Amino acid sequence: MGKGGMSQGGEGSGEGEENMAAWLLGVNNLKIQPFILPPLGPHDVRVRMKAVGICGSDVHYLKKLRCADFIVKEPMVIGHECAGIIDEVGTQVKSLVPGDRVALEPGISCWRCQLCKEGRYNLCPEMKFFATPPVHGSLANQVVHPADLCFKLPDNVSLEEGAMCEPLSVGVHACRRADIGPESNVLVMGAGPIGLVTMLAARAFGAARIVIVDVDDYRLSVAKDLGADEIVKVSTNIQDVAEEVVQIHKAMGARVDVSFDCAGFDKTMSTALSATSTGGKVCLVGMGHNEMTVPLTPAAAREVDVVGVFRYKNTWPICIEFLRSGKIDVKPLITHRFGFSQKEVEEAFETSARGGTAIKVMFNL
Amino acid sequence: MGKGGMSQGGEGSGEGEENMAAWLLGVNNLKIQPFILPPLGPHDVRVRMKAVGICGSDVHYLKKLRCADFIVKEPMVIGHECAGIIDEVGTQVKSLVPGDRVALEPGISCWRCQLCKEGRYNLCPEMKFFATPPVHGSLANQVVHPADLCFKLPDNVSLEEGAMCEPLSVGVHACRRADIGPESNVLVMGAGPIGLVTMLAARAFGAARIVIVDVDDYRLSVAKDLGADEIVKVSTNIQDVAEEVVQIHKAMGARVDVSFDCAGFDKTMSTALSATSTGGKVCLVGMGHNEMTVPLTPAAAREVDVVGVFRYKNTWPICIEFLRSGKIDVKPLITHRFGFSQKEVEEAFETSARGGTAIKVMFNL
Amino acid sequence: MGKGGMSQGGEGSGEGEENMAAWLLGVNNLKIQPFILPPLGPHDVRVRMKAVGICGSDVHYLKKLRCADFIVKEPMVIGHECAGIIDEVGTQVKSLVPGDRVALEPGISCWRCQLCKEGRYNLCPEMKFFATPPVHGSLANQVVHPADLCFKLPDNVSLEEGAMCEPLSVGVHACRRADIGPESNVLVMGAGPIGLVTMLAARAFGAARIVIVDVDDYRLSVAKDLGADEIVKVSTNIQDVAEEVVQIHKAMGARVDVSFDCAGFDKTMSTALSATSTGGKVCLVGMGHNEMTVPLTPAAAREVDVVGVFRYKNTWPICIEFLRSGKIDVKPLITHRFGFSQKEVEEAFETSARGGTAIKVMFNL
Amino acid sequence: MGKGGMSQGGEGSGEGEENMAAWLLGVNNLKIQPFILPPLGPHDVRVRMKAVGICGSDVHYLKKLRCADFIVKEPMVIGHECAGIIDEVGTQVKSLVPGDRVALEPGISCWRCQLCKEGRYNLCPEMKFFATPPVHGSLANQVVHPADLCFKLPDNVSLEEGAMCEPLSVGVHACRRADIGPESNVLVMGAGPIGLVTMLAARAFGAARIVIVDVDDYRLSVAKDLGADEIVKVSTNIQDVAEEVVQIHKAMGARVDVSFDCAGFDKTMSTALSATSTGGKVCLVGMGHNEMTVPLTPAAAREVDVVGVFRYKNTWPICIEFLRSGKIDVKPLITHRFGFSQKEVEEAFETSARGGTAIKVMFNL
Repeated sequence: MGKGGMSQGGEGSGEGEENMAAWLLGVNNLKIQPFILPPLGPHDVRVRMKAVGICGSDVHYLKKLRCADFIVKEPMVIGHECAGIIDEVGTQVKSLVPGDRVALEPGISCWRCQLCKEGRYNLCPEMKFFATPPVHGSLANQVVHPADLCFKLPDNVSLEEGAMCEPLSVGVHACRRADIGPESNVLVMGAGPIGLVTMLAARAFGAARIVIVDVDDYRLSVAKDLGADEIVKVSTNIQDVAEEVVQIHKAMGARVDVSFDCAGFDKTMSTALSATSTGGKVCLVGMGHNEMTVPLTPAAAREVDVVGVFRYKNTWPICIEFLRSGKIDVKPLITHRFGFSQKEVEEAFETSARGGTAIKVMFNL
Repeated sequence: MGKGGMSQGGEGSGEGEENMAAWLLGVNNLKIQPFILPPLGPHDVRVRMKAVGICGSDVHYLKKLRCADFIVKEPMVIGHECAGIIDEVGTQVKSLVPGDRVALEPGISCWRCQLCKEGRYNLCPEMKFFATPPVHGSLANQVVHPADLCFKLPDNVSLEEGAMCEPLSVGVHACRRADIGPESNVLVMGAGPIGLVTMLAARAFGAARIVIVDVDDYRLSVAKDLGADEIVKVSTNIQDVAEEVVQIHKAMGARVDVSFDCAGFDKTMSTALSATSTGGKVCLVGMGHNEMTVPLTPAAAREVDVVGVFRYKNTWPICIEFLRSGKIDVKPLITHRFGFSQKEVEEAFETSARGGTAIKVMFNL
Repeated sequence: MGKGGMSQGGEGSGEGEENMAAWLLGVNNLKIQPFILPPLGPHDVRVRMKAVGICGSDVHYLKKLRCADFIVKEPMVIGHECAGIIDEVGTQVKSLVPGDRVALEPGISCWRCQLCKEGRYNLCPEMKFFATPPVHGSLANQVVHPADLCFKLPDNVSLEEGAMCEPLSVGVHACRRADIGPESNVLVMGAGPIGLVTMLAARAFGAARIVIVDVDDYRLSVAKDLGADEIVKVSTNIQDVAEEVVQIHKAMGARVDVSFDCAGFDKTMSTALSATSTGGKVCLVGMGHNEMTVPLTPAAAREVDVVGVFRYKNTWPICIEFLRSGKIDVKPLITHRFGFSQKEVEEAFETSARGGTAIKVMFNL
Repeated sequence: MGKGGMSQGGEGSGEGEENMAAWLLGVNNLKIQPFILPPLGPHDVRVRMKAVGICGSDVHYLKKLRCADFIVKEPMVIGHECAGIIDEVGTQVKSLVPGDRVALEPGISCWRCQLCKEGRYNLCPEMKFFATPPVHGSLANQVVHPADLCFKLPDNVSLEEGAMCEPLSVGVHACRRADIGPESNVLVMGAGPIGLVTMLAARAFGAARIVIVDVDDYRLSVAKDLGADEIVKVSTNIQDVAEEVVQIHKAMGARVDVSFDCAGFDKTMSTALSATSTGGKVCLVGMGHNEMTVPLTPAAAREVDVVGVFRYKNTWPICIEFLRSGKIDVKPLITHRFGFSQKEVEEAFETSARGGTAIKVMFNL
């Protein structure tokens, strides 16, 4: 696909009545165009999208047509953080009825491979995931999706909050993998969107003390407002703040049981490995560097384990419960809102790409 | 302590009747001299040493007066892989009587810190461990040790095999941390003493398929004889053999569920991380490099976790059971034997340091 | 459905060319009649059955038209322990080709409910399971089944052994739930088919010492031949043999870490609870009594936990590996063989129902 | 020991200057008499007791000279829920200084047995536990205790609250064994002191929904005030309320993931087993009946596991953290207070024995 100039083909070019979607056509080339829906299967539902957030990966695809090992080769509908209202249900669907407000889990796994059967469906090699090429996303008026991946929202949880279940799920999955509970004292490296949802999730899982580190004053102030016990500012040329973090925890009577590296650079990971107490865990969430130069051996010799995360599994019910109960409030993370016009879509992505005070940019359709 | 010329002081210089020990006095300076035993506590036993093996760390101390962060500053009795016969028991000891043949677990933990109480006593910061400075070791005619760290040997397990429980424990602990069972297909990087005991332990825990990688033909042939399913020779300038290992496992109908890096270099660890299948584990056992440059992020994004190991805990009973039942035969690992004279002690350490065909060098006292 | 006289209806009565199956039509009324196959879906395979074993539940259905809470209300094809040869594969099937020899996992779960998604698909409330009413079984010339539930057999594993994967899976699942490994010393209450496969599985998972208890000399002798360390005969009016078992383990230097109650009566479960050492586990596999009068509180106060089992999950690969490697030999369990004629089917079920020296009765089709 | 009339001997009869303790001398015979302290070991501290609560087991000992299998044969100082102020520290104690306010963990384990070493020290067969015969308790002016079992209280946690760490620990240990977290929906059978602390602990571990069942209106109203989502009143001749509980959870959008039976009778346990959803856990905390008649098999066939609890381990730090952070408020449980005179001690025990509105009776020394 030529950068910035690929032609839109296949199903997307059909004259589907009215369903419009945001198509990624090339580098920095995003167009609202018709999107013909696939047929509604017996276990599927058709959802009218109402809220769709922009994720860092969406911006990556727009700017580079790739994210990690995934490459956009054909025109693709973008978007995967979403919630909407049920319009139609398949013949076998019993759990939902038209009118239900739902949050959508974006990945459809095969349920035939070993990993799916073992309950680690997030690692399914056959996963079909919204806006991960070549699968279309959900920034559209309507999508068709399996009913079992659409989770009904309680009355006191808005559709925007429903869309936030997706990023929040990353934090929840990280907390589960790191086994966070009330006996965990936590370090979070990075106060970007992922760092913040991880912090919120850790708090909701009961983490006793949370220290968060970032280079940006604004982000740290948001983290503090959202409940961090202590914040630590580092310079862009981040020094190793492991010792400082250890001392801050010590002053609170704690040790660092679990560190989340939500940035994923040599220096953040080195800090995480060194600051984590003997027998603890480091969870690598961010993906800044691919190859890393880090003091892995001294950490291993203290039985500090490194756990990885890929997306999430079975997280929507607990996310919705956290939102319902008020244990997590994601509303402060939604800093910008846009409508679903060509102009606003472009503006929204630019806003998200600029970063700054933009944490989560949300479309209201 | 001046290298090679420190004077021996304290308790070791006393004129204790006859108990002799191998004292590390300086670089390459090992002397058999009297060693006054501490008093026998109510829960202690006095053991007449009969078999003591040489560990890589012993050689490190002899050559550099240090190993990892531990530095020899005062004359120290060396040796920690040992077995012997009970000579005397403390007033409160009920589990043992004089004449019992026992293998000794070398570390005495504090049982007052959080890690001890949580059952991770191997990580105790107050650990007193044979021949880890400043604690004296066990290459001596007699030692005094807590009775609960002396494990009775069955009739069909020799004292030399008893001494081998110590290195074998490293493999057992690694297998436990990596959760090895009959559903595990395994890669072992490195066929040195640690790689071999890890392989033997993995086999005993039921590992289905084991591939082992090394640069040395002799070691690989030993590994094959000891039960490796496949061996892979690499050049010293080790290329990344991850793909080759994956193919070998595939040919056996398996994937690499767990990799043990028993070398601990950038290249061995990189191979381990890449070869391990999605959702698997890498256990870092060897300590070749301190800081490592490895593809940690792609591994983490496949939820390949890294688990560390430090020594072992609660391993003697299962090691002895493996030896008793014949599930593990450590005898082929004992390649050289020496008596306990000044000359033989020096020769034995030189033999161990040279490597080559020497896997385990054992003293018979 | 009137006992012994229900009429056979629906799909089973169709004039399907030649596929014949053993239909359960009423109490003690089993007839070989045509069985029309469902259409082959894209992910399905059609399997020519070659070996089908008789399970205790099959006999229950034949004698009482029920088993546990499942009741036969319509004519139903019986049989669920099976292996065969692939005849045809669906359009999307890549893992298998015609001619492949496969063992069949009999249950199709929904993969939409919470339990399936969490990896506990054996507990799926929507499970469709061979010969669990109203789902048809596999004692037929051919069946259609999902490809991912058909597991290819290595050359050195026969089709009969393949059919044995089903009962063996019960033992494997029990061992996994009880976390059996080389550090486990085991008690098995009951040496019937389930007790024997549990013992074989425990051995394959590395269990150190196994004591098995039964009322029947023949069964105990089989258990001994299959590898039990010690056997204990009890009278039908079984006394509590907990103390005796504890002493037998003690004589072997062990404690009872895990007990499997493969009978499921008050007295067997009481023995299991009392004999299991502090901190151990009792796994309740058999289902003799529904309500039980047992010393649960004293066991709980020693943190002896009770774990239940229902069928199995993800067990075929490990069962096949155990058979391939020779860690388990199920051939001695197959005591009787029959062909697939009306007369032989009746004889085979009578043989299985009589018990005695019949352990596993197998059809060769 | 003759009931009600045993003579007090040994160390207790010495003319120790001023340390007075409450001695259990026979049935309903509790006397304040001198209590000579053992010598202060290097790792011990001497604590001036300030708050001691009465436990149900204390009342049992007073009324029957026994509790479970423990029998009082010699005069014994009673009491084990306690907090105080450090008066003196042993030569090796670094963690505490005189004047520190501490809560005391009452059990001293051996750290030499297998269970201790595996981290399950609560199951240690050599445990020496305050006021479990023949070990003296802590209802005394002063006691000597190991420093590592004395946990410093933060400024905002009172000594009375410190004493409450002991009963709270029972709830914390139960929640840990049942793996309670924010994804757990909980049923508690019994709203006595143990039921209430279990409920408080479950809440603090993040349990989503909690339903509590009891026969007593007052207790249920306390439970409701302390945070139960729903309460269920049953008659003394308790019917099986499993179905009702399931419906209440369902109305909240939940299923019963974990049930705690804090009563321990046939009917409460039967309700717990039946109400718990497939794949869930029942934790047996109460000890009403010894032998139980319960539907264990149907529960096991749904893989509902039964986990037991005995006391607790490593719970003081998390209890103190819960009190410090306000996640748990135990103050409402302390319903009655008494001083440490002969008359008040008698009154206090009578108050506790009567039950009624007395939840926790506390001595202020």
